[in-house]
Amino acid sequence: MVLFTDFGEGSIYVGEMKGVILKVNPSRTIVDLTHNIHPQNVLQGAFLLKETFHFFPRGSIFVCVVDPGVGSTRKGLAIETRNFIFLGPDNGLLFPAVCEDRVNRVVSIENKAQLPEKISSTFHGRDVFAHVAAKLSKGLDIGELGPVIHKIKDLDLPTPRVEGGKIVCTVLFIDSFGNIITNLKRSGFREELSRSLKISIGGSCYTLPLVNSYHEVKENQPLTLFDSFGCLELSVNRGSASEYFGVKCGDVISIMLDKEKNLIS
Amino acid sequence: MVLFTDFGEGSIYVGEMKGVILKVNPSRTIVDLTHNIHPQNVLQGAFLLKETFHFFPRGSIFVCVVDPGVGSTRKGLAIETRNFIFLGPDNGLLFPAVCEDRVNRVVSIENKAQLPEKISSTFHGRDVFAHVAAKLSKGLDIGELGPVIHKIKDLDLPTPRVEGGKIVCTVLFIDSFGNIITNLKRSGFREELSRSLKISIGGSCYTLPLVNSYHEVKENQPLTLFDSFGCLELSVNRGSASEYFGVKCGDVISIMLDKEKNLIS
Amino acid sequence: MVLFTDFGEGSIYVGEMKGVILKVNPSRTIVDLTHNIHPQNVLQGAFLLKETFHFFPRGSIFVCVVDPGVGSTRKGLAIETRNFIFLGPDNGLLFPAVCEDRVNRVVSIENKAQLPEKISSTFHGRDVFAHVAAKLSKGLDIGELGPVIHKIKDLDLPTPRVEGGKIVCTVLFIDSFGNIITNLKRSGFREELSRSLKISIGGSCYTLPLVNSYHEVKENQPLTLFDSFGCLELSVNRGSASEYFGVKCGDVISIMLDKEKNLIS
Repeated sequence: MVLFTDFGEGSIYVGEMKGVILKVNPSRTIVDLTHNIHPQNVLQGAFLLKETFHFFPRGSIFVCVVDPGVGSTRKGLAIETRNFIFLGPDNGLLFPAVCEDRVNRVVSIENKAQLPEKISSTFHGRDVFAHVAAKLSKGLDIGELGPVIHKIKDLDLPTPRVEGGKIVCTVLFIDSFGNIITNLKRSGFREELSRSLKISIGGSCYTLPLVNSYHEVKENQPLTLFDSFGCLELSVNRGSASEYFGVKCGDVISIMLDKEKNLIS
Repeated sequence: MVLFTDFGEGSIYVGEMKGVILKVNPSRTIVDLTHNIHPQNVLQGAFLLKETFHFFPRGSIFVCVVDPGVGSTRKGLAIETRNFIFLGPDNGLLFPAVCEDRVNRVVSIENKAQLPEKISSTFHGRDVFAHVAAKLSKGLDIGELGPVIHKIKDLDLPTPRVEGGKIVCTVLFIDSFGNIITNLKRSGFREELSRSLKISIGGSCYTLPLVNSYHEVKENQPLTLFDSFGCLELSVNRGSASEYFGVKCGDVISIMLDKEKNLIS
Repeated sequence: MVLFTDFGEGSIYVGEMKGVILKVNPSRTIVDLTHNIHPQNVLQGAFLLKETFHFFPRGSIFVCVVDPGVGSTRKGLAIETRNFIFLGPDNGLLFPAVCEDRVNRVVSIENKAQLPEKISSTFHGRDVFAHVAAKLSKGLDIGELGPVIHKIKDLDLPTPRVEGGKIVCTVLFIDSFGNIITNLKRSGFREELSRSLKISIGGSCYTLPLVNSYHEVKENQPLTLFDSFGCLELSVNRGSASEYFGVKCGDVISIMLDKEKNLIS
């Protein structure tokens, strides 16, 4: 059982979810993937879930809660994919991950017989998703949770676009070191890349080395690399790129195309 | 085994407690309820423990450490209730929770034979409570920990009071979204409530909608609702109510009584 | 399996490591010692690891990642000590801990047959250390990971020095309460100590009581004590010493020697 929320690490809300799960299935291992999704940032959640779910063992049940629309008419979903089960709100959060792993079955969680008597209108993570996750972990079939549905809310992660001699990409995540992670994948480039990139951020222009690891530049010097997600990352060796460049999640970064080999393939 | 402290999430002190527990009982599941209690805020700890312990399975052992008086003459308690065991300092932290679950037996942890040889005077969470919790989890009876006592320090959670046409309530918790959680329970109101509340906060007056879930107001608009604790909560849809209203833990909020149906029953 | 990193609590990088471990060994208990080491502060990591590893049960595998040189030529180490296995970069992080527990065998992790096909150049915590830790937890001998080596990078934790009538010590850690933990051990003093210490911090001089526990001084009053690590700690009862004194990690603090009994033995 893997928990993935925007509740903030150490939130008592996470503790309550764990209590609910253990009450139904006391022997279940519960792992925190992260609870540090930027509050109510469904896009960031969708990106990070897609990039990380595959590290977990086959059969894992993901309980995913970034849910600004809780209590509205948005559905609660249970999705069986090739290797996993994903639970979460129907707001696009699960969409990129379940597409990547291929969907077998989607169920709208509606069957009151499988839900607690009292359900708050503000915390379905605890009252709906954690509760049914624990039941699934004990062998309940997702078909028992409600009707199969054939359409869920999609969410297209922003892709970099080429525009007048530059690649425009989006910052999707800033990690605890201050590294800036963009949506530009290594796989989007031809094999050979130049050894530096011209990058425009909020009106300023930088020429930054493109390296393989942080230590290749001096301390407190900026750099770019393709990181452990395979994404273009702006970093400062032993420093915070987010502070250095004044960049935050959702910002746009442009990469100047001055050599043909840097073009997106 | 459930850990509940004010050490801050990811504190190495929590890690040390887990080591101590696993050294005595390597197979025990350890769950973090929260470690984000405001440092040394016994009142907040007592409130949140009371609101959340019941989510855990019967037989859980709660190790609760919000302990500004560590090393003083305050007792260390082991309390057996109807469904659980609670361990923690005798400073009121456990009082509301154990009263709610009904007390069977209270023991003052004093028996040196059950304690480590060296006990620091600053970290009983590790040297006393985690240690004996692990022993209890292996079957030790709490009676082995020391003498039964019949009086513990009480702590009355503040209750809202009606005062000259308004209900005066207290902010007990601000969550990671910035939601403001008060001590005013839904159950204190008659069934039918008006659809908005007049609220006075630090000299300013607001008329706020009383809704069921956050999405019922526009983004960045303030609202009130009864939350997943059943408490009156001030929130801002997709924003931080704590920043919006400039409110912090311990502050007082007044609700104007302009309709009879809003009176506390 | 014990995780110890500077990724920040709740970092998704920690979640990825847990996924990798569970994929290889789904039944393994994983415990977080801490993830709040100050980013890339190898010295602080080395200090805290040395002070805390012994709380864990014999046979624990420590996965330790404070690794600013990831992707460089620095080796990845697997060290078998008398009671534990330690995994981490060869940058001194493990040195004080493994010396304390006595080293049996040191292996440089190089055997590609035991490593994943794709290894990022920025996240060996996930791709190397978590992966081989999981294999070791299933019984793999550390000798299978690569050649035995006989020299690793050492790291000497700074020790207090006596200089012209004062003891000069270093701040190695500031905890979530704001307590200031120095490298000066109780064991460095003769049995009897005076009841106050004259301390010089950044040009200012303070006479502070030396007590056994926080509550011995009034609220918001500063104090010193030997803490649960056995180290001299500056604290403020129910407050933050770090804010009070304006001290941060790495700063130097001097203790005036005005009585013979305060001399380091």
